[in-house]
Amino acid sequence: MNCKRFLITGCSGFVGRHFLNCLYEKKQQMDILGIDMKAPTFDLDRYADRLHFSFCEVNLLDRDRLYQVLAEFKPQYILHLASFSSVAYSWQHPEDSFVNNTNIFLNLTSVLKELQLPCRILSVGSSEEYGNVSDADLPLREDMYLKPVSPYAVARVSQEMLARVFVDNYGLDIILTRSFNHIGPWQDERFVVPSFIRRILNILDEASNSGSGVSDTDPVKGEIETGDVSIVRDFVDVRDVVEAYYLLLMRGTAGEIYNICSGHGLTLSDIVSQIGELCGVQVHTKVNPEFVRPNDNRVVIGSYDKIATELGWQPIIPWKKTLSDMIDCMKDKMN
Amino acid sequence: MNCKRFLITGCSGFVGRHFLNCLYEKKQQMDILGIDMKAPTFDLDRYADRLHFSFCEVNLLDRDRLYQVLAEFKPQYILHLASFSSVAYSWQHPEDSFVNNTNIFLNLTSVLKELQLPCRILSVGSSEEYGNVSDADLPLREDMYLKPVSPYAVARVSQEMLARVFVDNYGLDIILTRSFNHIGPWQDERFVVPSFIRRILNILDEASNSGSGVSDTDPVKGEIETGDVSIVRDFVDVRDVVEAYYLLLMRGTAGEIYNICSGHGLTLSDIVSQIGELCGVQVHTKVNPEFVRPNDNRVVIGSYDKIATELGWQPIIPWKKTLSDMIDCMKDKMN
Repeated sequence: MNCKRFLITGCSGFVGRHFLNCLYEKKQQMDILGIDMKAPTFDLDRYADRLHFSFCEVNLLDRDRLYQVLAEFKPQYILHLASFSSVAYSWQHPEDSFVNNTNIFLNLTSVLKELQLPCRILSVGSSEEYGNVSDADLPLREDMYLKPVSPYAVARVSQEMLARVFVDNYGLDIILTRSFNHIGPWQDERFVVPSFIRRILNILDEASNSGSGVSDTDPVKGEIETGDVSIVRDFVDVRDVVEAYYLLLMRGTAGEIYNICSGHGLTLSDIVSQIGELCGVQVHTKVNPEFVRPNDNRVVIGSYDKIATELGWQPIIPWKKTLSDMIDCMKDKMN
Repeated sequence: MNCKRFLITGCSGFVGRHFLNCLYEKKQQMDILGIDMKAPTFDLDRYADRLHFSFCEVNLLDRDRLYQVLAEFKPQYILHLASFSSVAYSWQHPEDSFVNNTNIFLNLTSVLKELQLPCRILSVGSSEEYGNVSDADLPLREDMYLKPVSPYAVARVSQEMLARVFVDNYGLDIILTRSFNHIGPWQDERFVVPSFIRRILNILDEASNSGSGVSDTDPVKGEIETGDVSIVRDFVDVRDVVEAYYLLLMRGTAGEIYNICSGHGLTLSDIVSQIGELCGVQVHTKVNPEFVRPNDNRVVIGSYDKIATELGWQPIIPWKKTLSDMIDCMKDKMN
């Protein structure tokens, strides 16, 4: 067999699922090992004609187990998605969040160093690493000074710095991203955009159940509670993101950091309006102070010039399609 | 009692000893709690008329024990010296080095947050945080982009970033330093300058034992093996350093980072010559490739403008006095 061997850490999550789709669309036979704390709940059979997928339950803090799994599978490419990625959790348990993110990465890299596998790793980081920035710093570029403002963000910066030390000194083949907010079908409702969609579809549901119906002249109206909807974020479709990940694994430069973003900013309030429009609901937002995060950045917009120039990547899925697909996916889930 | 209460972590080391001297010279009654993995081996009785010193054996990774000790002592000031500070060790055990430095700091800060003690912490960092710099970046200033080049240095940067997050978000009163190479009497011979002194004094000893004597017209000659002696470092007398630490604890600004350095660079080869001159030995250096560190910075010189401007600190001990005192201290030790 001469087919590519991919290891995906944190494979059972939202991004893992889309990365599998992306690999499937390459129309090649591939060997995939997914590892996570829990097996994927999505349908794996649909990939079976091209992707030979196996799953291993591995806690990445268990170095011995990780060693055993990597020694056996001998991956050529690792997409390292596993992370304690909640900023909110990192405030409640800074030790846990910090240590878990960083230790996991240290375990992975030390095992690879010991095994001396010729293997490329894509280490996924976050736009949170940039931290508080002034408008003059926008759009955010990879060579900017980092001012992380949460324990989670510090952990991500640490992982990135460790990766570069290991590239320079051990010759490990690690490529780094700072990935901005990604959204798309099947995203968990704890995240902001799917939670908006869910609540707006609920308004629609309630309206049709109550018999008030939907007409062009008298649209359905409703209210949702939100945090601060004036903040601006750079949302990028997860399907564009995973294409970037594949491209970076194939042709990125070791030790380099790449922003993965849309290059455009939208306020959360814009997003609510657009979802409302697509669903036919006039949505009013009401700020609940409990949902407002302390020290949140006002505006986050990235630049994808670097990956565009070096590898020709750019986001191609129109924003309206992303939202429509997410709405359709949520409707399927609700039926 | 209205006397100041200081906690010193890593109190049994070289800097802890000098900080006790510094506190003693303030000529006030003070309560000091020293914690470390091992009790100090230096004479503590000499401080007894002014400093009420007690020692607790504490592993800072043991959060419960740390909680107990801090809850009881209720420090007003903490000098946090404890660290796995060897760059070499961090290459052999990146996980240990990284995790230990960072976890220790996370334990300390989380205990203080829980206890809500009105306590100021001085978190000691390292010039290693700057990493590889070009000559155009010299002298190193606190607002520079950091490019750490060892796991130890990454751990130090992480500690600093976490500290700033905790200052901004929990209101913890933490002041930060980036301390450059410090030297002075009683420094361990594993460090470069004391190791030069020791070996040059050995040459002198051997010469007088062999009966060749010492004369002005025919100086003693000898050779020592070294690493790369062309590298430039900014050495600052530890007695100046601990004065800066005291001043920062009294009057520094929370969340701010301060370089502690001499502002001057010396090659290691200059230092060997100067020690030789003071000892009356003509020293020839021979490079042993085994002693050359990979990826070492060529030139490290800091700027102390910030602490000078804000607090009026500057190094005052002449370089020749530092070396003479170190030589005298080593001679005492050898007798």
